[in-house]
Amino acid sequence: MTSPIGASHISSRDNPLLKDLRKLAQDPGAYRRLGRVWLEGDHLCRAALARGIRPAIAVFSESFWPSAPAEWANSAIKTVVVDDDLLRAVSGLESPAPMGFVLELPPRPALLPDAPSVVLDRLQDAGNAGSILRSAAAFGFKQVIALKGTVALWAPKVLRAGMGAHFGLRLIEGVEADALDELKVPLVATSSHRGDWLHQARLPHPCAWLLGHEGQGVSPALEARAGQHIRIAQPGGEESLNVAAAAAICLHASGAAGLAQTSS
Amino acid sequence: MTSPIGASHISSRDNPLLKDLRKLAQDPGAYRRLGRVWLEGDHLCRAALARGIRPAIAVFSESFWPSAPAEWANSAIKTVVVDDDLLRAVSGLESPAPMGFVLELPPRPALLPDAPSVVLDRLQDAGNAGSILRSAAAFGFKQVIALKGTVALWAPKVLRAGMGAHFGLRLIEGVEADALDELKVPLVATSSHRGDWLHQARLPHPCAWLLGHEGQGVSPALEARAGQHIRIAQPGGEESLNVAAAAAICLHASGAAGLAQTSS
Repeated sequence: MTSPIGASHISSRDNPLLKDLRKLAQDPGAYRRLGRVWLEGDHLCRAALARGIRPAIAVFSESFWPSAPAEWANSAIKTVVVDDDLLRAVSGLESPAPMGFVLELPPRPALLPDAPSVVLDRLQDAGNAGSILRSAAAFGFKQVIALKGTVALWAPKVLRAGMGAHFGLRLIEGVEADALDELKVPLVATSSHRGDWLHQARLPHPCAWLLGHEGQGVSPALEARAGQHIRIAQPGGEESLNVAAAAAICLHASGAAGLAQTSS
Repeated sequence: MTSPIGASHISSRDNPLLKDLRKLAQDPGAYRRLGRVWLEGDHLCRAALARGIRPAIAVFSESFWPSAPAEWANSAIKTVVVDDDLLRAVSGLESPAPMGFVLELPPRPALLPDAPSVVLDRLQDAGNAGSILRSAAAFGFKQVIALKGTVALWAPKVLRAGMGAHFGLRLIEGVEADALDELKVPLVATSSHRGDWLHQARLPHPCAWLLGHEGQGVSPALEARAGQHIRIAQPGGEESLNVAAAAAICLHASGAAGLAQTSS
């Protein structure tokens, strides 16, 4: 195997970078301690590049490296090539990817008072969080505020479910509910049992949607801060929707309200 | 520990029922071979009872059994109590539940030509499938038709994400696309790139929504069968939504169209 110019080669499982990668790939909160994020696979890496992000390190398996697009290596500050077996052992996936990027964790952004926003109140499931970020980005929301107790947003499972949405949003984690006082956009709480029916409601635009814990919903204290409460009619009579499904419906309705404003 | 009247006790890991339970809990397609479904945990079991389903077997851990609600055991044809460690080893979950039900797999229902329906075209992800079943039940859809190549709908992960929706729907698996000719309701295909914008479209009610593979969407052959194509405006410019998020938005819009018909 030719050794690429400028690329360093890792063939020991005790290499400090590999140790960090294993933590980042397998421990959802490791990025907070290490200050770095691991993007596994070409889809997420392409999405980061498309947003102009410069990776700290591009990582390739030895067998994949010769066929890797040059832009991937050129885009990164540093390139490393890792023995195939060692890179496979990094992954938490059933089908490990042969490449990935290490990013510096972006500094926590300041809260924008006027931005269309989504507030996550102790959301627990990584797949739900990623799906909500994806919907938020699709429907023109600019920032996602994760209150304390919410799943770690830069964790690998959330990144995978987010499919690149992370790179188009301001993600503000570890926020206390009191900090929401800084928001100038109206707070709209999703509810399973009270408020206006979504299909009849006039929605403010922009606004900040409050989405709650999978089992408990939005906390009563947070619900009390909201100027409007919205529930989704369920003619089939089931007790509740999945929170990411409810979020998609509300954020779409809100985005459509924005489209209607723009076109009128 | 008192031995309950009528309950048999299992303390060997080689017990044939335990072997079957391990298969059912850990192999997504095992229910098709064994003709039985494993419901783990009280939420799913309560949901089945609420729909009038009579479990073939109620299974309890030895330490949980004395505090188990009597209706759970009384509802089942047979009750078994299993050593705690053995029951834990059955589960595929990080936090195994101390009880569960075994159901006979319902016979495959006949296709109802006039029912509001959801058609799954090679959907791959169990969490997405479960979330879609939940949304379908919530918004008044009556049957879900899974075309060949779709994830197994009675698999444990789909059951968990479905949160009981399985018991309120006609689930028809392993269907060839030609069988959709039996449907008299109009076919509406979701699309990422063509058709009417959902927020401006007039939706037929009832109808059958076509939802596609996570990466490829609805197949071209199936798309061609649809009388209407619907896409969701994404003012944020992301390339696509998660399929369960898109489904929630479309099924809600369709349900709301039904509500509007009923009230007019």
